[in-house]
Amino acid sequence: MLILLRSDASAADRTRVASAIEAMGFRFQMIDTAPRAAIALLGGEGRVDPARLAALPGVEDIIPLSRPYRMVAREWRPEPTIVALPGGLAVGGRDIMVIAGPCSVEDEAQIRATARAVRDAGAVALRAGAFKPRTSPYAFQGLGPEGLNLLREVRDETGLLIVTEALDEAGLDQVAAVADIVQIGARNMQNYSLLKRAGRAGRPVLLKRGISATLNDLLLSAEYVLTEGNPDVILCERGIRGLDGSSRAFFDLNAIAAVKSLSHLPILADPSHATGRRDLVPAAARAAVAAGADGLLIEVHVNPEAALSDGAQSLYPEQFAVLMGELRGIGAAIGRKLAERR
Amino acid sequence: MLILLRSDASAADRTRVASAIEAMGFRFQMIDTAPRAAIALLGGEGRVDPARLAALPGVEDIIPLSRPYRMVAREWRPEPTIVALPGGLAVGGRDIMVIAGPCSVEDEAQIRATARAVRDAGAVALRAGAFKPRTSPYAFQGLGPEGLNLLREVRDETGLLIVTEALDEAGLDQVAAVADIVQIGARNMQNYSLLKRAGRAGRPVLLKRGISATLNDLLLSAEYVLTEGNPDVILCERGIRGLDGSSRAFFDLNAIAAVKSLSHLPILADPSHATGRRDLVPAAARAAVAAGADGLLIEVHVNPEAALSDGAQSLYPEQFAVLMGELRGIGAAIGRKLAERR
Amino acid sequence: MLILLRSDASAADRTRVASAIEAMGFRFQMIDTAPRAAIALLGGEGRVDPARLAALPGVEDIIPLSRPYRMVAREWRPEPTIVALPGGLAVGGRDIMVIAGPCSVEDEAQIRATARAVRDAGAVALRAGAFKPRTSPYAFQGLGPEGLNLLREVRDETGLLIVTEALDEAGLDQVAAVADIVQIGARNMQNYSLLKRAGRAGRPVLLKRGISATLNDLLLSAEYVLTEGNPDVILCERGIRGLDGSSRAFFDLNAIAAVKSLSHLPILADPSHATGRRDLVPAAARAAVAAGADGLLIEVHVNPEAALSDGAQSLYPEQFAVLMGELRGIGAAIGRKLAERR
Amino acid sequence: MLILLRSDASAADRTRVASAIEAMGFRFQMIDTAPRAAIALLGGEGRVDPARLAALPGVEDIIPLSRPYRMVAREWRPEPTIVALPGGLAVGGRDIMVIAGPCSVEDEAQIRATARAVRDAGAVALRAGAFKPRTSPYAFQGLGPEGLNLLREVRDETGLLIVTEALDEAGLDQVAAVADIVQIGARNMQNYSLLKRAGRAGRPVLLKRGISATLNDLLLSAEYVLTEGNPDVILCERGIRGLDGSSRAFFDLNAIAAVKSLSHLPILADPSHATGRRDLVPAAARAAVAAGADGLLIEVHVNPEAALSDGAQSLYPEQFAVLMGELRGIGAAIGRKLAERR
Repeated sequence: MLILLRSDASAADRTRVASAIEAMGFRFQMIDTAPRAAIALLGGEGRVDPARLAALPGVEDIIPLSRPYRMVAREWRPEPTIVALPGGLAVGGRDIMVIAGPCSVEDEAQIRATARAVRDAGAVALRAGAFKPRTSPYAFQGLGPEGLNLLREVRDETGLLIVTEALDEAGLDQVAAVADIVQIGARNMQNYSLLKRAGRAGRPVLLKRGISATLNDLLLSAEYVLTEGNPDVILCERGIRGLDGSSRAFFDLNAIAAVKSLSHLPILADPSHATGRRDLVPAAARAAVAAGADGLLIEVHVNPEAALSDGAQSLYPEQFAVLMGELRGIGAAIGRKLAERR
Repeated sequence: MLILLRSDASAADRTRVASAIEAMGFRFQMIDTAPRAAIALLGGEGRVDPARLAALPGVEDIIPLSRPYRMVAREWRPEPTIVALPGGLAVGGRDIMVIAGPCSVEDEAQIRATARAVRDAGAVALRAGAFKPRTSPYAFQGLGPEGLNLLREVRDETGLLIVTEALDEAGLDQVAAVADIVQIGARNMQNYSLLKRAGRAGRPVLLKRGISATLNDLLLSAEYVLTEGNPDVILCERGIRGLDGSSRAFFDLNAIAAVKSLSHLPILADPSHATGRRDLVPAAARAAVAAGADGLLIEVHVNPEAALSDGAQSLYPEQFAVLMGELRGIGAAIGRKLAERR
Repeated sequence: MLILLRSDASAADRTRVASAIEAMGFRFQMIDTAPRAAIALLGGEGRVDPARLAALPGVEDIIPLSRPYRMVAREWRPEPTIVALPGGLAVGGRDIMVIAGPCSVEDEAQIRATARAVRDAGAVALRAGAFKPRTSPYAFQGLGPEGLNLLREVRDETGLLIVTEALDEAGLDQVAAVADIVQIGARNMQNYSLLKRAGRAGRPVLLKRGISATLNDLLLSAEYVLTEGNPDVILCERGIRGLDGSSRAFFDLNAIAAVKSLSHLPILADPSHATGRRDLVPAAARAAVAAGADGLLIEVHVNPEAALSDGAQSLYPEQFAVLMGELRGIGAAIGRKLAERR
Repeated sequence: MLILLRSDASAADRTRVASAIEAMGFRFQMIDTAPRAAIALLGGEGRVDPARLAALPGVEDIIPLSRPYRMVAREWRPEPTIVALPGGLAVGGRDIMVIAGPCSVEDEAQIRATARAVRDAGAVALRAGAFKPRTSPYAFQGLGPEGLNLLREVRDETGLLIVTEALDEAGLDQVAAVADIVQIGARNMQNYSLLKRAGRAGRPVLLKRGISATLNDLLLSAEYVLTEGNPDVILCERGIRGLDGSSRAFFDLNAIAAVKSLSHLPILADPSHATGRRDLVPAAARAAVAAGADGLLIEVHVNPEAALSDGAQSLYPEQFAVLMGELRGIGAAIGRKLAERR
C-alpha cells in the first residue's frame, strides 16, 4: 500500500503517517518523489484497511499495491480450483460446462420439455429459477418451494444437474437441499449475510457479478464465501449496466481473461443476460468460449413466447442445438471440449 | 406500452401481437408508422409485464408509455409524502432535515462526543452504523447489538433521532426496535426479501440508491416497501459508480429534481458517499440543498484520523458547523429552512 | 416518432402538438393510452429533427420509432456492403481481414521488421500511425509526413495494404495519397468537418467508435461520410470507457452483432485498444472473430519494450503468429476464413 | 511514477526496469512490498511517457504519482487564473459570470430579442452558435458566417460579450474575429489540431468537457492550449454520458470542486446540456453556483417551441429572470456575487 501525500503536505504530515503505520504494526518506506512524496506501507499484504491512513492530514490518496483479497487470489494459489460435481463432472478444468434452461420454473410441462431439449442438445446441467428476484413487485416472483420440487423430479428423470438461485438466508437452505449448484444472483452479490450463509451451505456456489461491480468487488464477495469454509465458488460474468441510449447490456468480455489472471476460481459467462436479446446470444456465447470461459449459462425455453420472464432473451431449442455445434468447433480450436454426461 | 415491430415483420406477426394483447385482457391500437409498425397496448397502466410480448416473433422492442411503478408515482398522487417523525419533526415538507454522525458506532466516547457536536451545530438526527456492510470480509463489520445499545443511550441523552442500517431480515427487527428511521443501504437496494420485511417494520425507511441503479430501479424498490403497507419511505441519492480513471464517485445531482418530478416521496442526499473525499463534501452538500433536497446525510467524526471506517470522507465538527451556516443561507435563498429541534 | 405527453397535459397541449406535426408536413395519429396520451408522427421515416416537438408544452419525451440514419441502415439496404481493396482483397464478405502492425511508425528498421513479421504470420494489411493523437502534449506525436513515406516504401516492399490515421483536414489529403484505408480515430469520431472531408477522400474509411459513443452516434457519423459520396466505410469497435476502479477498457463485444443487425457496413474489432493489456489481447481477438467481426486491427511490435507508444498492449510477433493459428480454427468453426494475399 | 511489478516478476525483470529508468535519464528507488515489488521513478515530475516502462516484462501496472499536466496544475501555480475580458469583466475571481442565449443563431429577430431578454435579466454575455456540431447530418448545422455577422451586430447593440463555437481550424479564425470567448465544444475536446490552433487564437478559450472525458483528459486538453501560448482557458462542465435506461444526462457536480483543487483555471457549468430538460435546469444552475462554479452557460430562447435546436432544454426568458434572482441569493450565501456590466 502506498500513501500518496499532497504536494503541500508538511514534514509533520509525513511523520504522522509514518507513526500511524508503525502503530498499526507495519513498517514504512519513504519515497522521494516530487512534487509529492509517498510512503510505502510494508508487511500488510493486502489486508490492511486503508480507512485510518486515508483520513490523516496531508494524505491525498491511498494506492493499493497488493490485492485486497487473498483466498481467491491466484498469486497465493497458482493452480486452478476445479469444482467437482456429481456424475463425474467438474468446472474449472479442460472441459467447458454448458448449463441451460428457462429463466423460471413455470409448470411441470414447461420444465420437463425444456430440460429434455437442452439435455438432448448436450447440456449437462439445468438452470431454472424457483425464487426470482424481480425489479418490479408486480412481476412473476417464481413458484417457490413448488418449483424446487419440480426441479428435483426433473433431475431424477433427466440426470441433469440443477442450478437454481437463492434469494435470502431462509431460502438458501431450501435451495441447497435440491440444487447441485446454488446460485447467488447479481442483485445479491453484495448481500453479505447471504454470502456468509452460502459459505456454510455445503454446496458449490455460482456467484454472479453485480450489474456494475468491479472485478475487485466480485472477488471480495467470493472471498466472503471462502472465508466461511466453502472453497467451491464458480464466478459468472453476466453483463454490466451500459451507456445511456443503448438498449443493450454490455457483455464485459475482457472480464473472463482478466479474472483468470487474478483468481484461481473458474468463471462462466451468461450470454443471455449479457445481451438481453435472443438475436445476440449466439455471438456472445461463441465469444465467451473463444475467450476462455469455463462454461456457459444459457436461457432456453421450449416456448419463449409464453415465458413468464425473460422470453425475449431465451433461445429456441433448435437455435440452442445449432449453437452447441458451433461451440464444439470453437472449443476444439483452442484445445478444449464441451463437458459431456457419462 | 408500445410494441415496436421489426421493419421486416409480417402481417402474421402483427396479428399475433394483437391477439396476445387481447389474451392478456387489454386492448390494442395499430400505429401506421414506416418502415416499422407499432402497436399500442391500451388499458395496462404501467403494471403489464412485457416479457410475453417481447418474445413474440417480429417484435423489436417494447417501449413503456407509463411508469412501471404506481404507489410511489406522483402522477397517481400529486401531493408530497411528508414523513412524520418523533419530536414534531418531518421529512418532505418545507424544512430541510440534516442527519449527521460517524460512519460507524465505534465506542461510547466516540459516539457521544460526535452526537453532541452535530447536535450543537444544528443537526436533528444522528446517523451511525451498528451493522456495517463492507466490501471486504477483513474490514471492520460494526459493533452489532452493542452498537444499537449505545445509540439508544445517545438518543436518550441528546434528543437526536437515530438513523441506522439493517443488513438482513433478522437484523431489521433489532434495528427497528431502536431506530427512528431504518436505513436500507445501497448494496441491498435490490434485496427484495429485506425490502418486504422493511415494508412491515412499522418505522420510516431510508432507502439508498444502489451504486448504479437507475431511478426506475430505485422507485420500484420503494414500491416493494409501499406494497407491503409502509408508506413512509425516504429516498436518498448517494452517488453512483463513476468513470474509469476517476478517483471520485459521481454525485448524480440531477436525480434530486428528477425524483421529485416522478415521485411524491421525499429525497435526501448523502454528500459524503457521493464524493468520498472530505474536501468535496461541503460543495456537494450546498449543491444538494440548492437543488431541492429534503435533507442531508453527512458523515462527521470527532476524530476522523482514528475512525474505523470512512474517515477520509468525514467532516471535522468545526467544518460541519461552518457548513451548517452556509446551508441556512442557501435554504433561505430558495424559500426553505433547516429543520430545528423543538 | 412518438410524442409522449405528460399525464397532466391538457387537450390544448395535444392539439398544439398535432398542429405542429401538420405544420412540419407530416401526419399524426392519436394514441389513447392512460394516464398519459401519446401522438404518433407518421411519414417522417427517421429524418425528423425532434427539437421543435420536444419543446412544446405538455410534451414529456420523444421516442424514435425509426432509425435516425438512413444510408447506413440495413433496413433500407439489406445486402452487406463489401469494400473492395487493392490486390483483390475485400472487407465485409466471407473473409476475415487481419490488419496488424505497430501503434506508430518509429523508424525505418522498426516498421520494416514489424511489417515483415506480420506479413509472414498471415496479415494482409499493415496498421501504423504517422500522425498520432495523444492525450498529452508531451507524448510522442508521430513522425508525420516522413512516417507516410516510410509506409509507402513498406507497402512497395511487402505488398501489405496500408491503414493509417488522419487527424485533420489538411492531413487527410496527405494520408489519402498513401493509405489504402484512411483511419478516423476514436477521438475524432464526431469531428464532423473531418468526416465530411473523408466523404470526399476517394478512399475507404475506417471509422473507429468513440470512447463512449453509442451505436447511434457511430452510425450517424458514418452517415456523414456516406452523404458526402463515399460508400466505403468500415466500422471498428475499439472498446469503451469502463468503470471507476477498473484498469481495463470495456470491449463491447455485443456491438459487433448489434451493428450487423442495424447496418450493412462491415465492422472490425481492435482487441489491442479494447483491452489495453497484452495478456488480454488474444482472448479478445478470438472472441471478436467468434462473434462475427469482419476483421481485426491488432498491435504488433518487434520490440514492444522499445515502442514509443502503446508498447504494453502490443503483441510480440511470435504471440501474433500463434494467435493467427487459433483464429483460423475459430473462423472455420463458424464457416469463415482469414483473408489471404493472392 | 510507480512501476508495479507482477508477483511472479524475477530479479532480472526488476533490474531491467531499473536500467530502463536510468536510460531515460531518471533515478529509481526500490520498494520492498510483498507479494509484488514496486519501483519508484524519481525526477520525472509528471511528464514521463509511461509507454516504454509499461511494456517491459514483469511489469503489472504503472501508477502515476504526479499529475500528467503541468501548466494548468494548481500545484505548480497556486493562485487562480483570472481571465480578463472586455468591459472590465473577468472570469475566475469573486464574481460569477452568467452567459445566456439560444443554442443557435437562427435569424435576426430571434437573436436580438433573446439577447435583450437575457441582458435585461442580468446576463453579461451572450452564447449562441453560428457553426453547430450536430450528431445527425440531417439536423440544422447553423447559419455559418451570416450567424457571426448577426452576433457582431447584437454585441454592438446590447454590449453583451459574445461566446460562440468553432468547429475546425478554418472556422476558428472566423470565430476569433468576432467572439470575445471562443468555445471548443465537447465533441472536439480531443481534436488536438483545433486545440493547438486555439492556443494561437489570441482570444480566451472556453473548453467544454467531453461527453465521457475524465478530468485528466480535460486538463491535458487545456494543457495543449496553454503550451501553444494562450493562458486564458476557461473550463466547462456540461454533463457526461449517463446510465442505460436513464433519459437524463449526468451532471458531474463534483467536477467543479475537484477541478478547482487540481487546477488554477476557472470552471463554468452548463446546466442546460448537463440536464437536457428545461424542468431540471434551474436546480442544476443553483447547485453549480452553490458548489463554487465561476459562472454558468445557460440556454434561453424567446420562443423555445420554435427553436431549431435544443428547444427542450431552453428556458423561457421569465424563467431565466426568476433563476437569476435565486442565483444572487445563493451567491450571497457563499460570499460571492453575480458579475454585472459596468
